[in-house]
Amino acid sequence: MNTSLFRAASRPAARLSQIPATSRSIAVRRYATAFNWEDPLLASELYTDDELAIQETARQYCQERLQPRVLDAYRNENYDRKILEEMGELGLLGASIEGYGCAGVSTVASGLITKEVERVDSGYRSGMSVQSSLAMTAIHEFGTQELKERLLPGLAKGKLAGCFGLTEPNHGSDPGSMETIARVHPTQKGVYLLSGSKTWITNSPISDVLIVWAKLQSTGKIRGFAVERSKCPPGTLETPALKNKSALRASITGMIQLDNCPVAVENMFPVVEGLTGPFTCLNSARLGIAFGAMGALEDCINRARTYALERKQFKGNPLAKYQLIQKKLADAVTDATYGTLAATQVARLKDAGKCTPEMISLIKRQNCDRALANSRILQEVFGGNAASDEYHIARHVANLFVVQTYEGQSDIHALILGRAITGVQAFV
Amino acid sequence: MNTSLFRAASRPAARLSQIPATSRSIAVRRYATAFNWEDPLLASELYTDDELAIQETARQYCQERLQPRVLDAYRNENYDRKILEEMGELGLLGASIEGYGCAGVSTVASGLITKEVERVDSGYRSGMSVQSSLAMTAIHEFGTQELKERLLPGLAKGKLAGCFGLTEPNHGSDPGSMETIARVHPTQKGVYLLSGSKTWITNSPISDVLIVWAKLQSTGKIRGFAVERSKCPPGTLETPALKNKSALRASITGMIQLDNCPVAVENMFPVVEGLTGPFTCLNSARLGIAFGAMGALEDCINRARTYALERKQFKGNPLAKYQLIQKKLADAVTDATYGTLAATQVARLKDAGKCTPEMISLIKRQNCDRALANSRILQEVFGGNAASDEYHIARHVANLFVVQTYEGQSDIHALILGRAITGVQAFV
Amino acid sequence: MNTSLFRAASRPAARLSQIPATSRSIAVRRYATAFNWEDPLLASELYTDDELAIQETARQYCQERLQPRVLDAYRNENYDRKILEEMGELGLLGASIEGYGCAGVSTVASGLITKEVERVDSGYRSGMSVQSSLAMTAIHEFGTQELKERLLPGLAKGKLAGCFGLTEPNHGSDPGSMETIARVHPTQKGVYLLSGSKTWITNSPISDVLIVWAKLQSTGKIRGFAVERSKCPPGTLETPALKNKSALRASITGMIQLDNCPVAVENMFPVVEGLTGPFTCLNSARLGIAFGAMGALEDCINRARTYALERKQFKGNPLAKYQLIQKKLADAVTDATYGTLAATQVARLKDAGKCTPEMISLIKRQNCDRALANSRILQEVFGGNAASDEYHIARHVANLFVVQTYEGQSDIHALILGRAITGVQAFV
Amino acid sequence: MNTSLFRAASRPAARLSQIPATSRSIAVRRYATAFNWEDPLLASELYTDDELAIQETARQYCQERLQPRVLDAYRNENYDRKILEEMGELGLLGASIEGYGCAGVSTVASGLITKEVERVDSGYRSGMSVQSSLAMTAIHEFGTQELKERLLPGLAKGKLAGCFGLTEPNHGSDPGSMETIARVHPTQKGVYLLSGSKTWITNSPISDVLIVWAKLQSTGKIRGFAVERSKCPPGTLETPALKNKSALRASITGMIQLDNCPVAVENMFPVVEGLTGPFTCLNSARLGIAFGAMGALEDCINRARTYALERKQFKGNPLAKYQLIQKKLADAVTDATYGTLAATQVARLKDAGKCTPEMISLIKRQNCDRALANSRILQEVFGGNAASDEYHIARHVANLFVVQTYEGQSDIHALILGRAITGVQAFV
Repeated sequence: MNTSLFRAASRPAARLSQIPATSRSIAVRRYATAFNWEDPLLASELYTDDELAIQETARQYCQERLQPRVLDAYRNENYDRKILEEMGELGLLGASIEGYGCAGVSTVASGLITKEVERVDSGYRSGMSVQSSLAMTAIHEFGTQELKERLLPGLAKGKLAGCFGLTEPNHGSDPGSMETIARVHPTQKGVYLLSGSKTWITNSPISDVLIVWAKLQSTGKIRGFAVERSKCPPGTLETPALKNKSALRASITGMIQLDNCPVAVENMFPVVEGLTGPFTCLNSARLGIAFGAMGALEDCINRARTYALERKQFKGNPLAKYQLIQKKLADAVTDATYGTLAATQVARLKDAGKCTPEMISLIKRQNCDRALANSRILQEVFGGNAASDEYHIARHVANLFVVQTYEGQSDIHALILGRAITGVQAFV
Repeated sequence: MNTSLFRAASRPAARLSQIPATSRSIAVRRYATAFNWEDPLLASELYTDDELAIQETARQYCQERLQPRVLDAYRNENYDRKILEEMGELGLLGASIEGYGCAGVSTVASGLITKEVERVDSGYRSGMSVQSSLAMTAIHEFGTQELKERLLPGLAKGKLAGCFGLTEPNHGSDPGSMETIARVHPTQKGVYLLSGSKTWITNSPISDVLIVWAKLQSTGKIRGFAVERSKCPPGTLETPALKNKSALRASITGMIQLDNCPVAVENMFPVVEGLTGPFTCLNSARLGIAFGAMGALEDCINRARTYALERKQFKGNPLAKYQLIQKKLADAVTDATYGTLAATQVARLKDAGKCTPEMISLIKRQNCDRALANSRILQEVFGGNAASDEYHIARHVANLFVVQTYEGQSDIHALILGRAITGVQAFV
Repeated sequence: MNTSLFRAASRPAARLSQIPATSRSIAVRRYATAFNWEDPLLASELYTDDELAIQETARQYCQERLQPRVLDAYRNENYDRKILEEMGELGLLGASIEGYGCAGVSTVASGLITKEVERVDSGYRSGMSVQSSLAMTAIHEFGTQELKERLLPGLAKGKLAGCFGLTEPNHGSDPGSMETIARVHPTQKGVYLLSGSKTWITNSPISDVLIVWAKLQSTGKIRGFAVERSKCPPGTLETPALKNKSALRASITGMIQLDNCPVAVENMFPVVEGLTGPFTCLNSARLGIAFGAMGALEDCINRARTYALERKQFKGNPLAKYQLIQKKLADAVTDATYGTLAATQVARLKDAGKCTPEMISLIKRQNCDRALANSRILQEVFGGNAASDEYHIARHVANLFVVQTYEGQSDIHALILGRAITGVQAFV
Repeated sequence: MNTSLFRAASRPAARLSQIPATSRSIAVRRYATAFNWEDPLLASELYTDDELAIQETARQYCQERLQPRVLDAYRNENYDRKILEEMGELGLLGASIEGYGCAGVSTVASGLITKEVERVDSGYRSGMSVQSSLAMTAIHEFGTQELKERLLPGLAKGKLAGCFGLTEPNHGSDPGSMETIARVHPTQKGVYLLSGSKTWITNSPISDVLIVWAKLQSTGKIRGFAVERSKCPPGTLETPALKNKSALRASITGMIQLDNCPVAVENMFPVVEGLTGPFTCLNSARLGIAFGAMGALEDCINRARTYALERKQFKGNPLAKYQLIQKKLADAVTDATYGTLAATQVARLKDAGKCTPEMISLIKRQNCDRALANSRILQEVFGGNAASDEYHIARHVANLFVVQTYEGQSDIHALILGRAITGVQAFV
């Protein structure tokens, strides 16, 4: 286990004294005898002490360091590159990978980290997920030993930034129709030339290592490449940022434009072929999202509850006194705890080697759907004040729509599940 | 552990060879490497071998003995009294109670039994729940030692039938306004006279032991009584059946009419006072319902899936081929597995002494709501054929409405949760 | 205009004095200055005096004569054949047809009649719709002059009962795959032999005239036949009743089994071919359903409101005092008035020759969906008492599921609309 | 009728040739024989030629002049003050007022104008509504003749900008608890001093005339004042803009801060007292919102449909080919046409003197709820591309949340309706 995480875990008392009261609930929950609205079905009972300590470390960092930055970042679409380094220092990047400077924590612990980051902002979580679950997982699962040793430590520390280029302008839900091509360099041995265009790529404008999936011209099969920006001749790799986004504005998003970009064969993943490669990474990320979305939802609940208790309307009653308000809170709390339990179960199954991709489709879909639906309903609690970004709720609502959509839109996962349930496909 | 259950558990091979293929999935699931639509997130991994064996025993009994009877029972509102004895023989009644001839299984195992019974019919499960969670739990938790020893063994075997009289014609969601009265017999020492009326009482017409909650005239406090029918003089106790029900027709429901019915002080629960008594029992029953509703939903899924695969429309495609059908199945499967995980978590917490009533409100409400909503949507898969009772779906739909309503209507539990979340009550 | 209807219309004062207060609202609504929850957006302003008088006549009949019979009819699946004659006497059958003893009222008036019948029970409305919109419309639109003159007057008076055989056991949503065959009699000139099987046919067991759609063996095209039971040799026509229905139990439903049943060429519709024939009739019926479903919903609203005002829970407050109850009522009232306005608009367009089938798909789908959804939510107002059939709500809920399903299940109409909106079909 | 509107109406041919094809549908719809997805139930049949011409004029202006500006305005929270003058020139401001330079059109025509503006952006519509329905209506209904003659013509032309100050920082849904105070000037006769604070006031930073509702200190009753900025001494009136809004960013919003601001008694509305004044104006605005929300929804439908036809996924099929997509479109189209019919009905009733406030609550609530819900579902059609503001859908989604919330949040209108339906209030 990585030492920075461990150190954090070994100093809970110190940490606790420094954080605001609302963040402390988890640490004391084991002895609670009363209903705890922040963990209604005691999911925390399912976690080891180490996992809880890791969550606490992540929570402390996120609340102390990320929360104060998010409003400005979101307003101005201004992602702070230093965040990756800070996360790297704490061991939050690629946390479930063993070795290469990574923390080697359980999938559950990794999910809890994700949840704490997304409690602040889905965009911050996106930036971390892309680095960890997509870029690092791709290299760790499929790269040569040399590639792992060369790139993973820098990515783990956040010295290098990574991204993951799968989606193309014309192919979102259907990556199999990919148009990006890799062809053998006509003269240089051991070199491929990549051409094509990827879009909606989180982190692409700041990435040093870009995982790019392309069809090998000779076979028509999809292969993966770790493109190192420093090695790309001018004009062969462009990563323009996409601005004026309606959500996830605290993350940075861009395109990857490849024009005969040369990549050494050593940077191609040697074995994996077809969609197995990208889908392995996506499954890792999606499992993180299933945890993360619950973090965002819990923040919405927390804020709506506080607002409902403080805001008075009609004869001085707090909004919390009204049935229509209570129902919104009860529904949201229920979905948050159900989703957390389900994500925990799948994470445990993954570590036990019993997880299937359909399980991940199921929890990614449901947790995102419910986080989105409930955040929208909780937004109503704020009335007109929801229009002020200082209440944070509209940001979560906007973010969660994209979270529901990317890495498999809800309907796509429904069809994946439908196929698994019936044995019949209904995509076309 | 009760021997009849244990014997069943020790012979899985023999049993498996006798039951239809569709019932076998649970027993073999541990070794499945593929997605299992009947247990998508492998809740079964959370159960011990004993718990799984108990579930299998219950499932076998329910599918072989109850399923063939349910159509006629529902059509004709004809509950077979022998079912209680059959269940008693297998150890399914009061299964989580230690001693007194009860099986003494875990709360999880008890929940799994409930689930298997409700997979067949919510009415059958109601009959069992009332006997186990309400009547037997009341006596076990609150009765004198003498009362326990005298009544529990007969109830455990199903030789005696029990019921639970709390709801009154004018007081459903608000039992605190109870009108039934117990007053000291004017002449007979050690005797109370009960007067009042209870309604919607499952099993009342066939009950030998009727738990009746009444306000003690002297204190105005609610107290519990185990009324033994055999000891009631003629005219003091009537239990007319309520017929022409729109649901739960396979169970028997009635009133309890008490007219100065004499009950010995020994049959009054000595300590418990107020709503603590009935709510303790209701919490036990509600936890069972949270499991049971998932059983009914799983049966709906199973039947809708089979129908969708067999029914062809438009160019010979099975309904299962259509996106709108797949989405219904995916949604239902998701809710069934989430609900099962949550109920399992609460059952484990209960055995660990960490369960609160609000947790039970949460899962009772959510699992019933989702079972009802999904069963209705799955009903659409059957098109016009849903109108035939031989497809069983309309029966589940009708039942689940009542299951959502009784033992705390969904809105009432929302307000219980709202109060627990906000600290403010919104009942009035 | 038919005289029996007209007489009714000319005696509003007399009628008003005889009907209960709750039924009177419509007649006085023109002068209301306050919000009228029974007609919140004053749809009645869109009706002529004649139309209002016809609605009043129908309402009076339905409330006085049908309402008292419905509980027993539904319990025992016992449709009273005399109802058709009573309706015939009042001019309610085939009401929008000109001539042949029919009332010749506007499509709006016809819709209002439908609404009043379904206010009592969807099954009663089904029996009327099948007679009017399906059997009579088929003959009137497509039959020879001789056939019209011979059959329509008897059907209009309810002396003859009619039904409509389109749906087959294997073909519900996709009637184009019909298997029933009509072939030329091998020896008798001018005679067709019909063979095949129809199911879920309202009124079939009591029908004298059965409209049967069959594929002409020689052409493979669908043609329509008016089969007269009295002319069918023994063993060539069977119409067994379907019992143990889960809904619409106050109507009678059966199969039509044809075994080389001889039908004279005069009874074949001479011109219409393909699905144009049945769809024309279905569109007429579906427009009626769009009105009718609003009648059933209004009855649910009326009953739920009354219950909510009379039932007291928690400190003596009526349920109506609680926010969660008020929201249910507000939602239902909104959908009822929106649906009524839309149906009225389409009925007016139909009389103006501007109605398209997609309009009818739209209102049939939406009004049925909303009636069903709201009736289910209103059912919650009744708590456990909803399980008693004497509150009538469970009957409406069960009925409305079938009403949503038959004559085009909601999803099928969604795809019809989707095709009309996009120009692309998604059925297969 | 105002001449600028009329001139527009008399030149339809010229206009039609200048506008893009997608805008032409309304003008030709009368002769359509096929289903028109843009007006599925032919609401246009309910409008007079004048009303249709006015709608066409408004549509042309909005599509040609507003649509090109909205993206930049929304991105930069940059409302162009000239828009009011342009609208004034066309006669769109205070259009239903007779005299004072206003167009004097029907309430229906006024609603159609609103719909066309909100088809572009709810913020633009907000700016217009505040000017027309709130500020101008307040003066027209309650001001002295002198005030009307002095202020209305400038407001009608857009030379003057107006706003409406009711909501306070602590009182949104419950304006009766207002804290802003008007007290008699201690020394100046005929002058009131206004002190207090209003928030979320559309147009306040640019307003010349600010309608302010305040409690008269002497009576405690709410009274209305037309505050003219030009007459306020420095430091007595501040109207800081509220920036960083999460929605309605194309409109300008601010506070009104009054610090002993002197207002002449001539500028106080002489008769109206209590909440009657502001509610009269709000009802006028809400009726406009009920139309406007349908315009925004129709734009979402139009854009989603176009995207679904152009975007190909899986074997080259357009998204429009998929059932799950078609259902989203069918649902939205249905709600758009139902909502338009209902708003039209209420507008007609208003002109006939038969409209009640509850009718307006009903349509404001339902149309906003459905516009919001459907826009969110249609957003899913765009997948990840919805995150780009160039697809406009996220803007509508964000806007419609506020539209649902302001001028009576959905739940508040539900309680208004609940009270009207049951006669019992459930606010507290």
